[in-house]
Amino acid sequence: MVNFALFGAGRIGRMHAENLVRRSDARLLYVVDTKPEAARALAEALGAKQADTEKVLSDPDVNAVLIATSTGSHADLSIAAARAGKAIFCEKPVDLTLAKVEQCIAAVKKAKVPMFVGFNRRFDPSFRALKKRLDAGEIGSVEQVIITNRDPGLPDLRFLASSGGLFLDFTIHDFDMARWLLGEEPVEVFAWGAVLVDPRVRTEGKDIDTAMLLLRTVSGKMCHINNTRRAVYGYDQRIEVLGAKGMLRAANLTPTSVESFGAQAACGDNPWPNFQTRYAAAYAAELTSFIHSVQTRKPAEIPPEDSRNVLLLCEAALRSSQTGKPVKIKN
Amino acid sequence: MVNFALFGAGRIGRMHAENLVRRSDARLLYVVDTKPEAARALAEALGAKQADTEKVLSDPDVNAVLIATSTGSHADLSIAAARAGKAIFCEKPVDLTLAKVEQCIAAVKKAKVPMFVGFNRRFDPSFRALKKRLDAGEIGSVEQVIITNRDPGLPDLRFLASSGGLFLDFTIHDFDMARWLLGEEPVEVFAWGAVLVDPRVRTEGKDIDTAMLLLRTVSGKMCHINNTRRAVYGYDQRIEVLGAKGMLRAANLTPTSVESFGAQAACGDNPWPNFQTRYAAAYAAELTSFIHSVQTRKPAEIPPEDSRNVLLLCEAALRSSQTGKPVKIKN
Amino acid sequence: MVNFALFGAGRIGRMHAENLVRRSDARLLYVVDTKPEAARALAEALGAKQADTEKVLSDPDVNAVLIATSTGSHADLSIAAARAGKAIFCEKPVDLTLAKVEQCIAAVKKAKVPMFVGFNRRFDPSFRALKKRLDAGEIGSVEQVIITNRDPGLPDLRFLASSGGLFLDFTIHDFDMARWLLGEEPVEVFAWGAVLVDPRVRTEGKDIDTAMLLLRTVSGKMCHINNTRRAVYGYDQRIEVLGAKGMLRAANLTPTSVESFGAQAACGDNPWPNFQTRYAAAYAAELTSFIHSVQTRKPAEIPPEDSRNVLLLCEAALRSSQTGKPVKIKN
Amino acid sequence: MVNFALFGAGRIGRMHAENLVRRSDARLLYVVDTKPEAARALAEALGAKQADTEKVLSDPDVNAVLIATSTGSHADLSIAAARAGKAIFCEKPVDLTLAKVEQCIAAVKKAKVPMFVGFNRRFDPSFRALKKRLDAGEIGSVEQVIITNRDPGLPDLRFLASSGGLFLDFTIHDFDMARWLLGEEPVEVFAWGAVLVDPRVRTEGKDIDTAMLLLRTVSGKMCHINNTRRAVYGYDQRIEVLGAKGMLRAANLTPTSVESFGAQAACGDNPWPNFQTRYAAAYAAELTSFIHSVQTRKPAEIPPEDSRNVLLLCEAALRSSQTGKPVKIKN
Repeated sequence: MVNFALFGAGRIGRMHAENLVRRSDARLLYVVDTKPEAARALAEALGAKQADTEKVLSDPDVNAVLIATSTGSHADLSIAAARAGKAIFCEKPVDLTLAKVEQCIAAVKKAKVPMFVGFNRRFDPSFRALKKRLDAGEIGSVEQVIITNRDPGLPDLRFLASSGGLFLDFTIHDFDMARWLLGEEPVEVFAWGAVLVDPRVRTEGKDIDTAMLLLRTVSGKMCHINNTRRAVYGYDQRIEVLGAKGMLRAANLTPTSVESFGAQAACGDNPWPNFQTRYAAAYAAELTSFIHSVQTRKPAEIPPEDSRNVLLLCEAALRSSQTGKPVKIKN
Repeated sequence: MVNFALFGAGRIGRMHAENLVRRSDARLLYVVDTKPEAARALAEALGAKQADTEKVLSDPDVNAVLIATSTGSHADLSIAAARAGKAIFCEKPVDLTLAKVEQCIAAVKKAKVPMFVGFNRRFDPSFRALKKRLDAGEIGSVEQVIITNRDPGLPDLRFLASSGGLFLDFTIHDFDMARWLLGEEPVEVFAWGAVLVDPRVRTEGKDIDTAMLLLRTVSGKMCHINNTRRAVYGYDQRIEVLGAKGMLRAANLTPTSVESFGAQAACGDNPWPNFQTRYAAAYAAELTSFIHSVQTRKPAEIPPEDSRNVLLLCEAALRSSQTGKPVKIKN
Repeated sequence: MVNFALFGAGRIGRMHAENLVRRSDARLLYVVDTKPEAARALAEALGAKQADTEKVLSDPDVNAVLIATSTGSHADLSIAAARAGKAIFCEKPVDLTLAKVEQCIAAVKKAKVPMFVGFNRRFDPSFRALKKRLDAGEIGSVEQVIITNRDPGLPDLRFLASSGGLFLDFTIHDFDMARWLLGEEPVEVFAWGAVLVDPRVRTEGKDIDTAMLLLRTVSGKMCHINNTRRAVYGYDQRIEVLGAKGMLRAANLTPTSVESFGAQAACGDNPWPNFQTRYAAAYAAELTSFIHSVQTRKPAEIPPEDSRNVLLLCEAALRSSQTGKPVKIKN
Repeated sequence: MVNFALFGAGRIGRMHAENLVRRSDARLLYVVDTKPEAARALAEALGAKQADTEKVLSDPDVNAVLIATSTGSHADLSIAAARAGKAIFCEKPVDLTLAKVEQCIAAVKKAKVPMFVGFNRRFDPSFRALKKRLDAGEIGSVEQVIITNRDPGLPDLRFLASSGGLFLDFTIHDFDMARWLLGEEPVEVFAWGAVLVDPRVRTEGKDIDTAMLLLRTVSGKMCHINNTRRAVYGYDQRIEVLGAKGMLRAANLTPTSVESFGAQAACGDNPWPNFQTRYAAAYAAELTSFIHSVQTRKPAEIPPEDSRNVLLLCEAALRSSQTGKPVKIKN
């Protein structure tokens, strides 16, 4: 039995907490939030207690923390938890600055605790099946990866202004997938951003809403990523890998399999509308992986080093889109 | 909060129990089984208690029973639960004889308790979406229904010998779907059975393994059903409805969306392998419906009368396949 | 070089003629029609001559006749052509009465000329590929065949009244496919017809517009056929074969591969709208087969005996739908 | 009636010639080739005559020339034909140098003859349907275009060495599609090439076999192109356009619609194997367009100016891939 304390009682924290309480090998003991009443409400609904950080980290019954607070506190909470000897499950990203991520990696290493970064897409059943077949050699060596990642609609403009920007907040998932699928670290990135969806993304959100990127590894393998904040037909999440012996694709998923054929046209479902529905299985599966690593004392499947490497790509993408030139990566 | 007692600690009972304990509006108090140790093991794993029928039916804290025992005891347990004033969720079929089903309907009516029969497929998200669009008039009036229901592989031959036969054990689901989708009671049925999969189905299982049927309503709407006990490519569950203004189809679902394109051919996933995986969402949803009707004191969405009408179709199909002639139905 | 005379300058005759003149191994010499001016117009457009039957059958340069007249004259023209020693390509059906078909078979046998009946669907690339894979054992022995054959819209009601009825005019194609795919002659047929599309089909057309049928072979293999005269979403032509080792399906074809994903739903093309567009390749391919058999003096790939056997099925279907009982076939 | 002379009796020339002779509004009078015997063989098979350039251009019966020679002679033949007052259908590209293309444009303008460049993909029914729906506003304004263009296997290495390189020989089609679909001229291009398929492509072919590119228009619309010379699963030709109101996709086409479902996996056809099969309809349709413009004296649908603009993109792509920097375009 792994006993958890949850930090962050917002949308993502709640989802993780619900996944936790459905399990027979884990228990949720505490919920911590900067708004104690939010923590209390969630804790009570799930049979846990509201508490503060100090109480949680000093309780020897707590084996693991699940950090789902806003990005700015991820690293400090992780470092504190590491020092208290707790296993750490931290939502991505660990931090928006390389320095903090490195500091966190060092603290975790010193404390010898497992730390898992929640790049949940690696646990999506379709992407995972694709990766497994890739690793089994089904299509030979990888030559090209195409990642389509499109949100269904603009988030709140205030969120955008504080998000770190499209590359750090959104493309970061694709960088993680790209590294995972290419099988080699990217050594060069080229990025173009644009505001095509809504001019307020620039004026109020201080961000871009559309991007196309290219990544290249040392042996010449290539990856294309395309992003938008608004695909009106739903949450568009596809992956395609071209190899020497074939192609593997993970297509979109849909809520139902109903198809309609009327006098005008043949229609099916659009993709799932948002990340909660599309990646529900992935969120549950990543928790399983983390709990397994806590129980077996094996390293986390997504350690914070992965977060560092992805952050390097984000920063390079940002620089590339600002200078209009490709940027080399030093891992 | 609806407090449940579960009868039957087998495969289906366990699945329902797990769906129950994940809910915040229901509680599992007791597990009853003819093998007390099986009941105890399941009860302990889920925070409930093992008990016998008398204890359960006399406990005023129990609001509802979930009957997942072998078919032969469904009706008697339902009748006993009705007399004790408990709401009833009963796995299909209520019984293999019309007389018992009628007896059960009468007992439920007299006791004024809701009784819900677990024809889970009506709660499958895809079939349900199809039905909703049908009811909304998307394809006009129904003319033809095609139901494909194929099991992935032969069950144990001893199970077959005690199952009631293909029509009562397996096609019964399709009869329920046919009635639901046609929007009119069938008045005639024609059926052919055959043993094409394995001759032991006849010799040891005393059954058939393959069937094709036709149903017809009073206004001439038609339905085709095809069944096999062995579709090697997976659990094949499809529905197609032709209407005056178009066609609605619910295609198979697959575990992932991965497609593979090699030098030889383009490949995707086969359908989900069995009913537990394919209809997982339906099993959870039917429980929601039942609990809702218990809480709101509304009639069950699938009352035992539906079980009776479907049984009429099963019997007619059996007679048709034995006489080689179509059989008229009197509802 | 095979020199042809065409009988019948209507829609189908013109299509065959255009396929003929595109070939380098065949030539169209004459066009014959009961309306000489129609024959002349078509002949001139394609570099051929208008002529009458006598002239055509006595011209030693003519190797082959292509009979695309109205059904009533198929048999007599075939018999006359056989007596004149010409190879015969005859549109389906050879005749609506068994007696005439037998007479025609006898004449062809006596004259030792090849006669090919234009069941064009056997030459559709998709159906043909399915059959080839079936014959190669890809899915083991056949157990079930499902044939969907739906016209996009009602023909002229006067045509219906003179067509021989749905089974002889329309289902006849499916009977041919069923025999071809089952690999055994059907020995029993059961049929239900209905008027669901338009009541004038009965009152003016003296016909039905909707049908469902079952066929069974001596070893128990089964086939389902469903028909309608009106599928508003297009010309619906699908085949599915279940075997011991898998399933083969031929899905509908569409004019383009464009898919549209809007805020409401995901849409693609509907199927091709009519038989000319859907089976264009089949019409050209059957001509190739016929010409090849003429050149190599091999028997026609679809001899008139096939037309006889299919006619037996049509008559049995008609009897079944009239009596409400299955009808046994004696081949 | 448009009377044609064909230049070039090779693979592409023969295909155009066969499309021509099937038409009732065009005639093939002459075939010209640097190998007179090849010209003679093709001419005789199709009812035309072998001739030399001088004879053809001085024959007043010739209205139009179809130039399907090797690339190096396209421009000179076009200029000569223009001076002789003939309408010109020229295979892409007009030339590999901008200077020659401009010279050709000038000659055509001066002679006031129509000149059509054979970017056949614009006439592919699927791509054309996509474009039509795009132009009709179905998905609002274009934001992103994704073009997948992958050959099924390496051509002869000697061909590569003389082809002008991947961008000029192969990507040129994608540049044409990109311009057509973006609705604005690209103003910037970024390209990466690699040799991932076979090292001899570099050593013997003096070329690359893999590429990823990005294009950008002045208003920020973006396009991604990916290329390979070897996709073992077939000729991969897909287009995807994201707009403000939705997405349009043109998927691959397959020879048949057969799907196979075995115990291991669900399989369908791979895409068509090569450009002749995939774009057969496009080749016929572009000829129709050209003949129509000759008959109606309207400008060619693909004038040589389009070839010039595409060549600008090819050269920029080449420069970008050599310098590792994006290159700005001046149209």
